[in-house]
Amino acid sequence: MDIGSTLPDATVARIRDSFARQGLMGLLGAELAQVKAGLVTIRLPFRPELTQQHGYFHAGGTASVADSAGGYAGFTLFPDDSSVLTVEFKLNLMNPAQGDHLEAVGRVIKPGRTLTICQLDVWGVAPDRRIHVATGLQTLICVQGRPA
Amino acid sequence: MDIGSTLPDATVARIRDSFARQGLMGLLGAELAQVKAGLVTIRLPFRPELTQQHGYFHAGGTASVADSAGGYAGFTLFPDDSSVLTVEFKLNLMNPAQGDHLEAVGRVIKPGRTLTICQLDVWGVAPDRRIHVATGLQTLICVQGRPA
Amino acid sequence: MDIGSTLPDATVARIRDSFARQGLMGLLGAELAQVKAGLVTIRLPFRPELTQQHGYFHAGGTASVADSAGGYAGFTLFPDDSSVLTVEFKLNLMNPAQGDHLEAVGRVIKPGRTLTICQLDVWGVAPDRRIHVATGLQTLICVQGRPA
Amino acid sequence: MDIGSTLPDATVARIRDSFARQGLMGLLGAELAQVKAGLVTIRLPFRPELTQQHGYFHAGGTASVADSAGGYAGFTLFPDDSSVLTVEFKLNLMNPAQGDHLEAVGRVIKPGRTLTICQLDVWGVAPDRRIHVATGLQTLICVQGRPA
Repeated sequence: MDIGSTLPDATVARIRDSFARQGLMGLLGAELAQVKAGLVTIRLPFRPELTQQHGYFHAGGTASVADSAGGYAGFTLFPDDSSVLTVEFKLNLMNPAQGDHLEAVGRVIKPGRTLTICQLDVWGVAPDRRIHVATGLQTLICVQGRPA
Repeated sequence: MDIGSTLPDATVARIRDSFARQGLMGLLGAELAQVKAGLVTIRLPFRPELTQQHGYFHAGGTASVADSAGGYAGFTLFPDDSSVLTVEFKLNLMNPAQGDHLEAVGRVIKPGRTLTICQLDVWGVAPDRRIHVATGLQTLICVQGRPA
Repeated sequence: MDIGSTLPDATVARIRDSFARQGLMGLLGAELAQVKAGLVTIRLPFRPELTQQHGYFHAGGTASVADSAGGYAGFTLFPDDSSVLTVEFKLNLMNPAQGDHLEAVGRVIKPGRTLTICQLDVWGVAPDRRIHVATGLQTLICVQGRPA
Repeated sequence: MDIGSTLPDATVARIRDSFARQGLMGLLGAELAQVKAGLVTIRLPFRPELTQQHGYFHAGGTASVADSAGGYAGFTLFPDDSSVLTVEFKLNLMNPAQGDHLEAVGRVIKPGRTLTICQLDVWGVAPDRRIHVATGLQTLICVQGRPA
């Protein structure tokens, strides 16, 4: 399946259902913006409850949406009766995370039966600019026969 | 200064003030548990708002407290008129993050004038067990002359 | 300076001189293939002395050329009287590293006065195919006033 | 099995045979120093062929012995008819890698049926000092039914 191609409605619904069960995404106020094959975007609007000590988005919030974006990007390519777990991820925080919202993009760069590797990118978006806030890599594992 | 040794009250107060300004720690319900030289522990009690789709702590919450623990562990060793930023971190999620609370420990393993390296460990704690949930490494940068 | 643009001859010569002083690149048989602004490619021909236990290129060789490619990609953008050191790198080994040669590409994705972040990619190249063997991220530090 | 405990002779022999087939270890001049359960040490004597541009050990050599040490640490715990592959590793280079030799220690921190996580540490050893040169984390995968 080509990365970025349109998915069957049932697959998108499976991703949206799983996302809705992630209590943390609700607490942060994150929204699933785009769900394509191997490519998922999450939007995180700014609010003071998401900051670190200087008033920027906390790296933990940046990491949370990056991790979910990558996890679901991989999950779009997994069999129906499987689930996804993050094995590890690494994130470089390249610029202060500011803007009206963050946009986290997870993109599968190596799909696999057991392990899938994703690139993670987070952008700080304001009306007049779009700054590359963070980039990372993530290793996912596909677990068979476990409800997602 | 020996890692784990007691800090002057003023340094501990500076860390606690900075932690209190991290909106995300308040939103998550995280508490600063221990502040020693180069060694900081953060406690994150479980609640459904912190979960991923299977009901465990979301890796983003685990990463958030790990990142803050490491950042403040480094910050205890920085000069008064400096601030701390995370350059990058990497986290291996080794076991399902469950328990009554998470305990995130940041420990400086290489202090430096510009860069400081920390080990990050997160434990899932229940009355009857203590499981090593995640381990990681973090690179911090000390920025001079910026209010923390 | 645009990433991938042509560099002054003096800068290319500075990179080639430094590369020639890396004893390890000579031992491995690695060659500097392309030197552009923020973009450096290193070629590593296969030989049995570079293998792991299954006969593929050892991850250490893959890492060696990836690290040098990224380091020199950053170094092209540094001031004349500075040197480059690797702070850390992370590498995902996505496919068996095989082929007639490896091609390691280091590309600056965030230049900075102190820290520079590079993307690392390694390809296994044979006459009939080109496989993405490894991808990674690297943090470099620019050290002033130290002979490169 | 306790990490660091003595292994059956047959397991040690299996590790030594596999190490001897790693062409790169021979080229670098690396020696298998210690093989215990989940804990392997490799020794890399200094020579000019292993340097980077300032005359220290190149990070690629450091990474090579760290990766092999971790890989074999995991392999000591794997079934007889399996092999080990590195999924990814991350290394922080904390001090200039110098000394009479490097000592790379791989230690399993989370064994698993499919994935195993190791801590990697490299020391620069001279008669009068022992410096912590690098620390890292590594994810290994156990592949069934493939000759090691």
